[in-house]
Amino acid sequence: MAKLDFWYSIGSTYSYLTVARMRDYARDHGLQVTWRPFDVRRIMMAQNNVPFRDKPIKTAYMWRDMERRAELFGLPINVPAPYPLPDLPLANKVAVLGMTEGWGEDYTIETYRRWFVDGKEAGSDPNLSDSLRAVGQDPVAVLARAAGEEGMALLSAETDTAEGLGIFGSPSFVVGEELFWGDDRLDEAAAWAAKAG
Amino acid sequence: MAKLDFWYSIGSTYSYLTVARMRDYARDHGLQVTWRPFDVRRIMMAQNNVPFRDKPIKTAYMWRDMERRAELFGLPINVPAPYPLPDLPLANKVAVLGMTEGWGEDYTIETYRRWFVDGKEAGSDPNLSDSLRAVGQDPVAVLARAAGEEGMALLSAETDTAEGLGIFGSPSFVVGEELFWGDDRLDEAAAWAAKAG
Repeated sequence: MAKLDFWYSIGSTYSYLTVARMRDYARDHGLQVTWRPFDVRRIMMAQNNVPFRDKPIKTAYMWRDMERRAELFGLPINVPAPYPLPDLPLANKVAVLGMTEGWGEDYTIETYRRWFVDGKEAGSDPNLSDSLRAVGQDPVAVLARAAGEEGMALLSAETDTAEGLGIFGSPSFVVGEELFWGDDRLDEAAAWAAKAG
Repeated sequence: MAKLDFWYSIGSTYSYLTVARMRDYARDHGLQVTWRPFDVRRIMMAQNNVPFRDKPIKTAYMWRDMERRAELFGLPINVPAPYPLPDLPLANKVAVLGMTEGWGEDYTIETYRRWFVDGKEAGSDPNLSDSLRAVGQDPVAVLARAAGEEGMALLSAETDTAEGLGIFGSPSFVVGEELFWGDDRLDEAAAWAAKAG
């Protein structure tokens, strides 16, 4: 079966387009996808890569572009969504913890929906606790672990791995040694996976 | 007929993918395309937008991504090409002058081919003079006008117009009020033009 690693950070705007359609996409394309949250902000800061924060014109375009592409994919969206997130690391510490326990994908989908449809920031309340409850988790227990040593170590290790693969943005898709960056490269990554698989 | 403005700067790497396929693409899609060179570097500097210069990892990805996409489109390419260009403004002053006289598109295609296939920088010799001769122009006469008041005024005016349209990168496609950025948005821009046209 064709395989692909889907690297993303909750906090990336364009990653919403991938998160919201990935399960259907994988099923339709016979693709086995491993979801891998990491801390893109750590890598981008180290690389002096600031795509939007100080760029209002590019940012305005980004929202319009996302709106058009969401329509293309039949996804609900309300833009501009709150941006940037005040606590991107926490949002992803919860996700990496969830991946070790089987609820990470559901949490990612839930928190992105609340962020991009309901307008509630991911990585902080009410989105964070509501998304955890929605996937059958106790927010108090999960947040204690995610915000502590465990979450820190898991996210740090995945971010190191991402960095080692040459990943510099979210979403990214990795097939063997081949890296594809951006929701708009999903088709090419899937084709590469099909060829390799 | 569906209409689209194709804004580009000779100096943009990804614009090679558009320049090299645009004529065939326009014919195949029944699209009337107006080629509009401008000075993207002026706009990007004003907006603190530095996509590659200080970012070696992102730059390495860009070359690989271009190589894959060139293969997808059946275009010849040798990467990495010389980058950045030492005189991006001059390359585009020649292009805007050429647009007023009917040889601007041919010059753009010729100079990009020499840059991305033969490895000779656009905007300086031998590429510049060879490309002009290839489109039936006298390099000495053209360069005198392009490097002087005339080229400066033409490029400055087009760059002002681009800025007014919200353009911040190359290539960009404009259909009415709608802006699409990136070679990878050409299909969406063409679809928008077909709907509008």
